[in-house]
Amino acid sequence: MRLDTELAIALRLADAAGDAIRPHFRAGIASERKLDASPVTIADRAAEEAMRRILKAEVPRDGVIGEEFGTDEGSSGRSWVLDPIDGTVSFLAGRPIFGTLIALLVDGWPVLGVIDQPILGERWIGASGRPTLFGGKPAHTRACRELADAALATTGPQYFDDHQGDHFMALAARTDHRRMMMGGDCYNYGLLASGHIDLVCEAGLKLHDWAALVPVVEGAGGTMCDWNGDPLHAASEGSVLAIGDPARLEDVVEALACHH
Amino acid sequence: MRLDTELAIALRLADAAGDAIRPHFRAGIASERKLDASPVTIADRAAEEAMRRILKAEVPRDGVIGEEFGTDEGSSGRSWVLDPIDGTVSFLAGRPIFGTLIALLVDGWPVLGVIDQPILGERWIGASGRPTLFGGKPAHTRACRELADAALATTGPQYFDDHQGDHFMALAARTDHRRMMMGGDCYNYGLLASGHIDLVCEAGLKLHDWAALVPVVEGAGGTMCDWNGDPLHAASEGSVLAIGDPARLEDVVEALACHH
Repeated sequence: MRLDTELAIALRLADAAGDAIRPHFRAGIASERKLDASPVTIADRAAEEAMRRILKAEVPRDGVIGEEFGTDEGSSGRSWVLDPIDGTVSFLAGRPIFGTLIALLVDGWPVLGVIDQPILGERWIGASGRPTLFGGKPAHTRACRELADAALATTGPQYFDDHQGDHFMALAARTDHRRMMMGGDCYNYGLLASGHIDLVCEAGLKLHDWAALVPVVEGAGGTMCDWNGDPLHAASEGSVLAIGDPARLEDVVEALACHH
Repeated sequence: MRLDTELAIALRLADAAGDAIRPHFRAGIASERKLDASPVTIADRAAEEAMRRILKAEVPRDGVIGEEFGTDEGSSGRSWVLDPIDGTVSFLAGRPIFGTLIALLVDGWPVLGVIDQPILGERWIGASGRPTLFGGKPAHTRACRELADAALATTGPQYFDDHQGDHFMALAARTDHRRMMMGGDCYNYGLLASGHIDLVCEAGLKLHDWAALVPVVEGAGGTMCDWNGDPLHAASEGSVLAIGDPARLEDVVEALACHH
């Protein structure tokens, strides 16, 4: 799979989404009260519409699965998965570490992913068989010799149910608790791809929340899987692990599984 | 109190700290393993040393209380409180929402505060009797008519003991849980001063973690206090509330107090 054309399209999508999002960041404080008319919803919709227009013009036979406007089945066996603003709470709070997520699935497997932070102008680009790029240069995950040294991130405990929370805590207890970091959404996976953190562990993610992350993390030398260690496919249930050093995969899955 | 000279010094301190910190951000991935020789420690120390040099030259009779190098008693009744990198975990993870905190205490009360984010070039400046400035313009907290609408932030549940965690959860249950946000350290207080979030609730903070926040938040129209609603003084215990709309103070203190 060459993916050159698809990569060029993905970058145009990210540019278009950023243009739609930037005017709404830290704007319209008063109207933030009502979520359905909030700047994040306006920006979310405008960005997804802009991306869908490009896809309709360029690859009309491809499917589109968007956070805001649902699923358009295609006829090519390929689908674009769009999350215009991953990290809506961060966006609303004025924190510039949300991201636009763009993925291409072939037969339900993610083969291309972009994480774009339009306020900071930061972009991770991943594609099967290629090194992940950040700021135009290859990004690399870092080695992690012991789970006890690992820096673990998750967006927040409020996104786990009680059962998932217990498993997460069992993993957290085996990592370096001084480095555990909350918040961050998709941005954490970019930081993992760039070798700044070791693990991200989340649950309840939708396809549009994780599909773009897989090519980014794997093209940087890391691995992504579900909490059982199985590969992530469109049909996966949304319990997601990103592991910078694939040598730690077994330790992580074991630590997650064996809480008491 | 005019504070013009002191404000000019505080801004020079922030500039010097930023110059010392920036080269170490996202650098030296390999050495991050050992916290005591990590880039954050090197940057922390270099930044505090740079700030102490300026204070020694400009205001040698003032005290200095620094996160890294402890307390130098002064003879003027005034003390500068320095936290070169608040949010060391964020710094280490490559997340550009840590901050340099600079405060001036008079008789133990904070009268001047700066929150500086040297990677993004963002700076909040607060001083008693003056409007807080962000990017050179006045910053304002936002109104919050009902506690149920409030967006609440805290750096992470791992910083509460069990007892504090129960109280925090009692408060969280009364706010808008869809907007609760984790992570962020001092940056959350800046976002509150700029009207993007409503409440920050933390515990276990040291004087250098919170002193600079008080003039920033209060000069923007908000209020800061401990978990009992009492004003924060150098002798306070480190349970800290920031409330964007002071009309919600009583509701917040009551919600925090009455968990079952």
